Amino acid sequence: MTNNLLSAETVAAHNTRESCWIIVHGNVYDVTDFLDDHPGGSNIILKYAGKDATEEYDPIHPPNAIMDNLPKEKHLGKVEPGTIVKMAKELTQEEIDREERVKNRPPLSEILNLHDFEAIAKEIMPPKAWAYYSSAADDEITNRENHLAYQRIWFRPRVLRDVTHVDWSTKILGHKTSMPIYITATALGKLGHPEGEVLLTRAAAKHGIIQMIPTLASCSFDDIVNAAQPGQVQFMQLYVNKDRDITKRLVQHAEKRGIKGLFITVDAPQLGRREKDMRMKFEGDADVQVGTAVDRSQGAARAISSFIDPVPIILKGIQCWEDALMALEAKCDGIVLSNHGGRQLDMSRSGIEVLEEVVTKFKERGLWPCPKFEIYIDGGVRRATDVLKAVAMGATAVGIGRPFLYAYSAYGQDGINQALQILKESFDEMEMNMRLLGARTIEEVVPEMVDTRSLCSHSSPPANELYQSNYDKLRRAAIKSKL
Amino acid sequence: MTNNLLSAETVAAHNTRESCWIIVHGNVYDVTDFLDDHPGGSNIILKYAGKDATEEYDPIHPPNAIMDNLPKEKHLGKVEPGTIVKMAKELTQEEIDREERVKNRPPLSEILNLHDFEAIAKEIMPPKAWAYYSSAADDEITNRENHLAYQRIWFRPRVLRDVTHVDWSTKILGHKTSMPIYITATALGKLGHPEGEVLLTRAAAKHGIIQMIPTLASCSFDDIVNAAQPGQVQFMQLYVNKDRDITKRLVQHAEKRGIKGLFITVDAPQLGRREKDMRMKFEGDADVQVGTAVDRSQGAARAISSFIDPVPIILKGIQCWEDALMALEAKCDGIVLSNHGGRQLDMSRSGIEVLEEVVTKFKERGLWPCPKFEIYIDGGVRRATDVLKAVAMGATAVGIGRPFLYAYSAYGQDGINQALQILKESFDEMEMNMRLLGARTIEEVVPEMVDTRSLCSHSSPPANELYQSNYDKLRRAAIKSKL
Amino acid sequence: MTNNLLSAETVAAHNTRESCWIIVHGNVYDVTDFLDDHPGGSNIILKYAGKDATEEYDPIHPPNAIMDNLPKEKHLGKVEPGTIVKMAKELTQEEIDREERVKNRPPLSEILNLHDFEAIAKEIMPPKAWAYYSSAADDEITNRENHLAYQRIWFRPRVLRDVTHVDWSTKILGHKTSMPIYITATALGKLGHPEGEVLLTRAAAKHGIIQMIPTLASCSFDDIVNAAQPGQVQFMQLYVNKDRDITKRLVQHAEKRGIKGLFITVDAPQLGRREKDMRMKFEGDADVQVGTAVDRSQGAARAISSFIDPVPIILKGIQCWEDALMALEAKCDGIVLSNHGGRQLDMSRSGIEVLEEVVTKFKERGLWPCPKFEIYIDGGVRRATDVLKAVAMGATAVGIGRPFLYAYSAYGQDGINQALQILKESFDEMEMNMRLLGARTIEEVVPEMVDTRSLCSHSSPPANELYQSNYDKLRRAAIKSKL
Amino acid sequence: MTNNLLSAETVAAHNTRESCWIIVHGNVYDVTDFLDDHPGGSNIILKYAGKDATEEYDPIHPPNAIMDNLPKEKHLGKVEPGTIVKMAKELTQEEIDREERVKNRPPLSEILNLHDFEAIAKEIMPPKAWAYYSSAADDEITNRENHLAYQRIWFRPRVLRDVTHVDWSTKILGHKTSMPIYITATALGKLGHPEGEVLLTRAAAKHGIIQMIPTLASCSFDDIVNAAQPGQVQFMQLYVNKDRDITKRLVQHAEKRGIKGLFITVDAPQLGRREKDMRMKFEGDADVQVGTAVDRSQGAARAISSFIDPVPIILKGIQCWEDALMALEAKCDGIVLSNHGGRQLDMSRSGIEVLEEVVTKFKERGLWPCPKFEIYIDGGVRRATDVLKAVAMGATAVGIGRPFLYAYSAYGQDGINQALQILKESFDEMEMNMRLLGARTIEEVVPEMVDTRSLCSHSSPPANELYQSNYDKLRRAAIKSKL
Repeated sequence: MTNNLLSAETVAAHNTRESCWIIVHGNVYDVTDFLDDHPGGSNIILKYAGKDATEEYDPIHPPNAIMDNLPKEKHLGKVEPGTIVKMAKELTQEEIDREERVKNRPPLSEILNLHDFEAIAKEIMPPKAWAYYSSAADDEITNRENHLAYQRIWFRPRVLRDVTHVDWSTKILGHKTSMPIYITATALGKLGHPEGEVLLTRAAAKHGIIQMIPTLASCSFDDIVNAAQPGQVQFMQLYVNKDRDITKRLVQHAEKRGIKGLFITVDAPQLGRREKDMRMKFEGDADVQVGTAVDRSQGAARAISSFIDPVPIILKGIQCWEDALMALEAKCDGIVLSNHGGRQLDMSRSGIEVLEEVVTKFKERGLWPCPKFEIYIDGGVRRATDVLKAVAMGATAVGIGRPFLYAYSAYGQDGINQALQILKESFDEMEMNMRLLGARTIEEVVPEMVDTRSLCSHSSPPANELYQSNYDKLRRAAIKSKL
Repeated sequence: MTNNLLSAETVAAHNTRESCWIIVHGNVYDVTDFLDDHPGGSNIILKYAGKDATEEYDPIHPPNAIMDNLPKEKHLGKVEPGTIVKMAKELTQEEIDREERVKNRPPLSEILNLHDFEAIAKEIMPPKAWAYYSSAADDEITNRENHLAYQRIWFRPRVLRDVTHVDWSTKILGHKTSMPIYITATALGKLGHPEGEVLLTRAAAKHGIIQMIPTLASCSFDDIVNAAQPGQVQFMQLYVNKDRDITKRLVQHAEKRGIKGLFITVDAPQLGRREKDMRMKFEGDADVQVGTAVDRSQGAARAISSFIDPVPIILKGIQCWEDALMALEAKCDGIVLSNHGGRQLDMSRSGIEVLEEVVTKFKERGLWPCPKFEIYIDGGVRRATDVLKAVAMGATAVGIGRPFLYAYSAYGQDGINQALQILKESFDEMEMNMRLLGARTIEEVVPEMVDTRSLCSHSSPPANELYQSNYDKLRRAAIKSKL
Repeated sequence: MTNNLLSAETVAAHNTRESCWIIVHGNVYDVTDFLDDHPGGSNIILKYAGKDATEEYDPIHPPNAIMDNLPKEKHLGKVEPGTIVKMAKELTQEEIDREERVKNRPPLSEILNLHDFEAIAKEIMPPKAWAYYSSAADDEITNRENHLAYQRIWFRPRVLRDVTHVDWSTKILGHKTSMPIYITATALGKLGHPEGEVLLTRAAAKHGIIQMIPTLASCSFDDIVNAAQPGQVQFMQLYVNKDRDITKRLVQHAEKRGIKGLFITVDAPQLGRREKDMRMKFEGDADVQVGTAVDRSQGAARAISSFIDPVPIILKGIQCWEDALMALEAKCDGIVLSNHGGRQLDMSRSGIEVLEEVVTKFKERGLWPCPKFEIYIDGGVRRATDVLKAVAMGATAVGIGRPFLYAYSAYGQDGINQALQILKESFDEMEMNMRLLGARTIEEVVPEMVDTRSLCSHSSPPANELYQSNYDKLRRAAIKSKL
Repeated sequence: MTNNLLSAETVAAHNTRESCWIIVHGNVYDVTDFLDDHPGGSNIILKYAGKDATEEYDPIHPPNAIMDNLPKEKHLGKVEPGTIVKMAKELTQEEIDREERVKNRPPLSEILNLHDFEAIAKEIMPPKAWAYYSSAADDEITNRENHLAYQRIWFRPRVLRDVTHVDWSTKILGHKTSMPIYITATALGKLGHPEGEVLLTRAAAKHGIIQMIPTLASCSFDDIVNAAQPGQVQFMQLYVNKDRDITKRLVQHAEKRGIKGLFITVDAPQLGRREKDMRMKFEGDADVQVGTAVDRSQGAARAISSFIDPVPIILKGIQCWEDALMALEAKCDGIVLSNHGGRQLDMSRSGIEVLEEVVTKFKERGLWPCPKFEIYIDGGVRRATDVLKAVAMGATAVGIGRPFLYAYSAYGQDGINQALQILKESFDEMEMNMRLLGARTIEEVVPEMVDTRSLCSHSSPPANELYQSNYDKLRRAAIKSKL
């Protein structure tokens, strides 16, 4: 980046397809040659030709996307401070209505559970942001199955135990956590709130749980690490890049910054098709673009372990016992049974269903319990009871993603704090439910406390909404209307 | 309580946070120091500062709550009779509409079943009272499962038996009952009707069934016992208090008053979260508060048996066969398979499902049938056929709670009388259904008369309404509207 | 009956509770003393005091009810012809609308299946008649299960068979029938059409199937027999009367009139409660009364066989294999697996489910196939495919009731003829489906042609509409409306 | 056909039932004697008496229907070019609205999946055409089951495999196909678009897949073959005609034209009843008539193989393992497990369910895998994931029918091209899903990748819409309204 200073007026002259400059974070870029390569199309860039595109750019790109993708010589310099004129933004009626709804949010004290955050977020988030967060693959069957699977598991609570004192803290990879929950990685945190992922960092500190830093965060990795309290444990999600050197640099940097676990995402050799999100784009001109050069050869876990040493490696996205066994044999430190929130292969099974399969098969082979190998699951968790089911069935902890995004999208920092509070503290779900279940500690939440016999029964799968909306119901013979 | 006489005018002067007196049942209390300790908050008390709070106080507190919780010196004396001025109460439109609906209730002769009472109660009860009675834990899955589980049990009726005479009377703990049903304990009976639990006492006498007196009754224990007919059998529900002496006093008093069975509630080491009820409170300022210092160590059954002797002890709230077996081995006289009407741990199984598990496991161990150990269930019963299913599967009797509350909330004493009538008498459900089933006596209602093979199948659990209302259905491509 | 002739004017003077005469079919009866014994209450009679009650009386009483129940001396004589003045009948708006709908019925050619008849009947029948025909016991779970059970049975059709000629005729008790269907007994046929059961008799003749004459017919037994063609086979349904002599007379008369089979109803020791029907009565003042002195001792089959000889005896209403076996051992000629159209014990299983149980158990005991013992089922049949499933599973034939009532209620004689036509003839369901199934004759419809593995799975029972309509769905936190 | 030239005016004079001439494709026919034999009735012909009926005739008749069915002497000659006056056609409001919707179709770029084509086709197709394509037998249970069965099969994806290169091409009967999909035979292609089946031919060429030419095509067999590219592989569907000579001629002609596989339809000894289609006809006067003299003796496969030699023979419509085994033993080259899109025997199982049965039984007998005998399935496929499930379970390829008709009915040639594109190419479903599943080639899509345990569970079958719409829900007691 040169130190040239350019006036906004100068930049403004380059507002055509033939010469197109834009301003992002005070820097001026010549994107003329890049227009046709932009994954989101050229139109959205041309809309900002000669102008400041920061506000549009920010939530939908990784922080350094433009700097990394544009040749150095196209970085023209900095814009003279004070010369930028904000684009007048005319609000549509829909936006005015939405802002009205923002004003009329119920007070946080009326939010009773994680469902409530989602209900509010759905009403007040910009439609594209909502679509990006909530969308899932194909017919979104797996997305809903993730939640519904929990409803096929029933409790077998014990009584007459001394549950005066209940302790739901536990350890993840040896690190203390106030409850068997961690914040899992989700992309583009600024779509829901301008501060993005650091909101989660702060809430995690406040409530003593661990955050997994996403590869596709809106905030930079360092910003998120910097937002942590001294001693706060953070994990890092990793998409293995085709360019092994990039991966190597990322990992070594993470290690240096004190990351305590690497969660290598293995279920996304290609990003899934999310039609709710795709459908949204036809109604406007902006675009959500999160390209990343994923290494589809996926032999990466072994490679990574060669250039880091003490950081535990966990494979995220295992979906059958055979792969779980391979991970164990490859001396990984753990796995996340996950289908990527239903965003990748639709009709994949829920993590909780796979958990039962894995534990059963491991037990048959005398490999379970296995203190050196932790199993996590994510997807569909909404209640402390969901977490307790997973723990009873053998999970060390459960990752929660979307509900936390909805919490801060609806109420900012207070929202995400409150979401964790609801899960944890006095008058909270976790304490109550352990007491009702008859377990004083997480260790006492045992397999006998759940009845999972119907878990694998899929005779009533989630409805295929598209298929059903197309089905033309039979009509019966009808009395003729007279008109 | 001193015998001071205070004029209402004197009391009225203490209407501030600095000096706050209230009148309850003609007694004057100085609650200034208690304001911040009130579980329902200070606002609701301050609303009645210097005034008579009896009407607001009555339905939502156990009778002696204020006397037991306030130091003796704050009991200032009695208010001079005739000096109290009733607060003018302005009715909201909603209340006016509700009173209109009360007037337009269908005559009792049109009430055909227990569902009908609920339908009417829902329309005419004050919303908060309805919310308190009808609410259940979390997503209310267990609450609905309690009923739905019965629909997975089907009859195998026998024919060509002489069913001219059908006798559905039986015995509970050796006491005659006109049918295998008892009135189970439910809290705050005055929310639905100013007379509260004594309505149930009288109906029980009239129809020859047994009432279990609730710990959290709106009427006092003695009032309920006093309302009984000579020889009328009553049981008592017991939350074991942390303070063993209190429990001891309660139990010894109960024994003296002739209570014939102690039902120790073991499934409520902490009161459950009921969101329907919580949600209601945000819309007003009153509060339902039923605090009780529960002994969470729960080792109480044994302790109790040390200071009572002849009174049978039953554990209420057993939810798996392991605990049932422990109760048997501990020489309890019986158990209630119950999940507290779905108000405690959501996703607990229904009592009827647990019943099958318990009987099966007991049979495997040669412990069944077991004349010295009776099993009851409660939750979800609406029809005589539900009762017959439970009896066929091994239950001695079935507890019914909410439906009776709805019956008197809708129609007072006549309502609850009619509810029992519907269940029992000529043209009634019980007689008809035993005849159709081919059973002349309760003993003849045997396991072979039910097909329970689908009972444990949970592939279509009750809908999670909150989750479903948040789910944003996929839309298909659509013809553009022209506007 | 005396031969007195009384003028209508004379009768009209007896129009009070103190002296109440009515005219039925031209005969004058003094019903003053009977008023309080009338099962339908005195009000409805008093409405016709001194008048001609024939029109009201006819559809809801067995033809001789008044003659049989009133002492001879109360039969006062005949009314002078021509003196009766018809009661002016003012039509309500609802009745006017209904007559309009009758006029606008679609032509019969648009009726494609049995569902269509029901759709039209529902629109044009008087509400009370519809309620009586369509109602079933309690929550009507069994009523719907009867139909839904068929949807859990799937076909395994065979191909490449020569199905040029398909013959779906078969024999019932040795009598030829054009298809494996018979018209089962249903009560009060005149509620749907003034001609009543004889419409079925004529259609049965036309299409070569067998009619079972109901005990509670609106037409008299002899009228129905007289309506038959020479050689037309009829069966008779029998509720065994407490008074064995009455039963004996009935049976011997039936034998004399050539009845070819006695179907003794064993599932109705008491008439079931049908709330849809009961609910209807509160909205008017008329009443449907079909009392009959049923012998609840039910030891009658053996008794009957003592005074008839050649007529085969079938027990109608068997619902488990144990009773089926008893019927076989008692040398009955067959059984009908039936739950009385869901009108008796709700939550009974469907006939088709019981069929599988019976055949399986009989096979285990080497008792099946059993040429001397035929099994029929009824309930829920709407399509020829339903019939084929039953036949494949071992049924000799299937009884159909309500759909035929709906057919003639909607379109009279043409309607019921067309219903049978739809089931049978060219372009009809039966031929087509046998061809598609790969069966040329009824004998070729074998167990291997159906997949019944899900038949006994009851994890998704019919909805309990009353329970569901009472359930107060959880609401989520909501944006405040401004108002 | 004579070479007579007749003026349109001459023809126009023959516009009565006594002398009725019509023009089709410029030829004049005397159909007077045929009027009463027309399967669609005489009215629709008389409407065009003396006029040009081509437009009405074309989509609903096989091309040569009139020439083949009318005696030579009734072919009167050709109409003089230029003399025909087009019938003025007045558009109904419904047609005007429909044309408006056609104009407002979303651009093809907004079509994301096969469901979308159906959604658009449903809105813009003429109602009768939509009814003909979408209708299925009886209650359309099987039709919906075909799709829903796929939702009971779940994936078990594998991770950490090198899926950089994914190849989803495979072979069908030795012929290369770009994906394991073929276009199956469907009737009357011109109902949806005037060009009809040749649209499919061209799309198949473009995307390298195989088309099965339907017997009941709107285009002639030769037109469809002529539309193919050099070397393009086509199969032929065959209904075996009663007249073996006709069949022989057809087959020998097909062989000569280079057809590479004969798919003999064995599940349609008679055309099914499709009520949605039948219902439609009552609202107009036109008619869809696709009569063909089917040989119901069905012994034809063997006969056919006697007069063709090198062309592989596949039986289409097998529905149980017994018939599959017979086909194998008869040395057929393959089978299609199909229920004719649910258009024949309702309540038949889905092809995918039968597939599991067949493979299981073949394995038990050591007959599987079987390189010389290929198994295909069709029905209900909407997503690439559906195809992958079938392939994993043993299918060589999957036939898709209706979705392709909807694609071109909605968007013509571009639509069908895009439909295949969506299934296949970059950003497409197939590539993505194989990658996510962890399979690089079709061979790597193995049985272990699917969990089929719930496939045969039918406890929640598709709703019977007609039955449900007739069911009169129970009502509860209600507050009286005041009016």
